[in-house]
Amino acid sequence: MINQAAAAKRGRPRASGAESASTRQDILDAAAQLFCGEGYGSTSTHAIARTAGIRQASLYHYFAGKHEILLALLLGTVAPSLAAARALLERDERPEVRLWALCYLDVRLLCAGEVNLGSLYLLPELADARFAEFDQQRAELLASYAELIGACEPMRSEVVPQLADMVLALVESVILRRRKVPRLDADDLAPRIADAALRILDVRPETINAARTQGAVLIDQL
Amino acid sequence: MINQAAAAKRGRPRASGAESASTRQDILDAAAQLFCGEGYGSTSTHAIARTAGIRQASLYHYFAGKHEILLALLLGTVAPSLAAARALLERDERPEVRLWALCYLDVRLLCAGEVNLGSLYLLPELADARFAEFDQQRAELLASYAELIGACEPMRSEVVPQLADMVLALVESVILRRRKVPRLDADDLAPRIADAALRILDVRPETINAARTQGAVLIDQL
Repeated sequence: MINQAAAAKRGRPRASGAESASTRQDILDAAAQLFCGEGYGSTSTHAIARTAGIRQASLYHYFAGKHEILLALLLGTVAPSLAAARALLERDERPEVRLWALCYLDVRLLCAGEVNLGSLYLLPELADARFAEFDQQRAELLASYAELIGACEPMRSEVVPQLADMVLALVESVILRRRKVPRLDADDLAPRIADAALRILDVRPETINAARTQGAVLIDQL
Repeated sequence: MINQAAAAKRGRPRASGAESASTRQDILDAAAQLFCGEGYGSTSTHAIARTAGIRQASLYHYFAGKHEILLALLLGTVAPSLAAARALLERDERPEVRLWALCYLDVRLLCAGEVNLGSLYLLPELADARFAEFDQQRAELLASYAELIGACEPMRSEVVPQLADMVLALVESVILRRRKVPRLDADDLAPRIADAALRILDVRPETINAARTQGAVLIDQL
């Protein structure tokens, strides 16, 4: 009897316990696949529910609509970057080492996952105020890059915002690259891009070499 | 009588003469605005026709469908870059100078225009075979970057493809940046990004300074 009741319940999950968490994740996985594979505009909540193996009414139990699913996916991409940035800003290592580590970690995050979630960053739909939380978190990440860049040798306070934009752009180049090569070699790419970021800043070659060695050690300690 | 006939005809353009060219452009302008403002998936040919001020049936006189309009817009963004790349590959100036000029020109092109057409590069819909021509032209542009990079000092033949990806990514960082600041200061940004591209390649500072001066002269001669 209990098993039958549980089986019957499976079609209409409630927001409680492990099943709820897993259904929520199923919806996010299905939406990620459809948004990145078919396009956000072309994907209906009906298609997301079908792909997730639930009824459309159940979907609305977890998310108010398609925009809320997109927002959850976007916040999920920036959260680990931001956690790494916050941890690195608290550390005592040289800023070049910490910036190297941040670039390295961010490239790995953008290379990870079944689908290229970063490709959603360019959706015109994100201009809507409902995505303001994502914009704020991205702004904090950019500010973290700028803080580390501003502390690197040689000092260059007046152009820090432009340099931060360029360095983050270099890191996010992974997004455009995954369009052609869905599974990038992160082990090769992450140190290469982190090195290039320091070269953009005119950091001396011997400091870049040191940042690569010490950056790898630092990452293991985070 | 002639004027009245012309006025009457305006609502139903034919594929002939100046009016045809202008109607085609009106469709492209309307589609660019909608694809970048509302999203490609959310835009119907009906909405494009309405925004262009023509009937939907007239739109199909110029384009077989929405994908053909998108393809025309994409080819339009890469054509001037490719023309500049081909011209630069024929020149005798040092590769550092020509690469600087290519980066500079590409940044200016990506900064130009009312809407951020580069944001369409990430659409998942582009995986469709109907966009193969755009992929080929992008590949030729990337190969032009690689050819110039491979000829720069210091030589580094084995990592040229990765460096070309990084340099083009730095140039195309303009696309992500325009999401926040639709009208970028190209006069400031273009030389800054071209300089940074050469720094990624470890080009010596005095060579970068020379490339900046001679690159500006070269661009005027193209």
